[in-house]
Amino acid sequence: MQPKPWTFVAGENGDWLIVGSRAVVGAELPAAARLEPRPTLLAELPARASWLVRGVTSNERYVFRAEKTLLVAKQPALGRPSARCAALIPIRKSEAWWDLTQDERRAIFETRSQHIEIGLQYLPAIARRLHHGRDLGEPFDFVTWFEFAPADSAAFEDLLGRLRDTEEWRYVEREVDVRLER
Amino acid sequence: MQPKPWTFVAGENGDWLIVGSRAVVGAELPAAARLEPRPTLLAELPARASWLVRGVTSNERYVFRAEKTLLVAKQPALGRPSARCAALIPIRKSEAWWDLTQDERRAIFETRSQHIEIGLQYLPAIARRLHHGRDLGEPFDFVTWFEFAPADSAAFEDLLGRLRDTEEWRYVEREVDVRLER
Repeated sequence: MQPKPWTFVAGENGDWLIVGSRAVVGAELPAAARLEPRPTLLAELPARASWLVRGVTSNERYVFRAEKTLLVAKQPALGRPSARCAALIPIRKSEAWWDLTQDERRAIFETRSQHIEIGLQYLPAIARRLHHGRDLGEPFDFVTWFEFAPADSAAFEDLLGRLRDTEEWRYVEREVDVRLER
Repeated sequence: MQPKPWTFVAGENGDWLIVGSRAVVGAELPAAARLEPRPTLLAELPARASWLVRGVTSNERYVFRAEKTLLVAKQPALGRPSARCAALIPIRKSEAWWDLTQDERRAIFETRSQHIEIGLQYLPAIARRLHHGRDLGEPFDFVTWFEFAPADSAAFEDLLGRLRDTEEWRYVEREVDVRLER
């Protein structure tokens, strides 16, 4: 899979209405009415837009083959007509996280926090796409986009609650949770 | 460590004279007289320059803690006055490599190819810095910059020969080897 760039632009345009936005850790993002995901890396904020976050889809950094097989079998595509709810969750991890080696990060991410295992339990209800921003010099290391049906909103809250309760999340130093509907 | 962007510009400027350039696999790079490493991500080729390659230093993707401890103890800084030789080696790996999962890539990279173990044997003679370009949409996934003293040139050839003989290198679909002196 070739890396693909995305820019999420918050402002007056886009199919997605912003129905909520809160800082979970650290500074919040400015208020805006709508969000437009654009399949490009915008160099600057469009006129009258409020903010943007950028990232690229890329190869996975922690998933092992047995996990990938389970993920591929269960994970749905984005854009399902029933998935009228979405969430955009940009995250920045601490320097302490990035100073860890690959084996230490994997041990926290999956062995002790079950990030993949927890996510699998909410498939196929919750579709997601991960974007990497750190190597682009972005303020957020990761931007995750989730889509789900209104009936799965409670399951989505449950998923987030379980992830935020893990050892991995102690390394999150900024997190904003933006909710959307179309 | 924060990711840091670098652009290597080949043309008429820079302290490093290009004394050789060959394609190991795939297409070569155009001829040029000098190379200038610049600590920024240049958006475009400067006037009269011949080519550029770009990448960012980033967290390591495969190194385990025990290996990192050995590397940190032995690896020298760049810029030693005695290190008047350098090499710039941009590499692109195949889609088959990027389709592998983390455990599969680590097994090829270290368990079966001893990439870290081989590199350790040439420390502190050969200093190096790795730059990642794939997530930036660059034609090369990696750009490695090496520095060494003239007396260590044979050791450097030996290092490259051993790496190019590994299973990992079967996934290299483009590699250019540019040699420099100052």
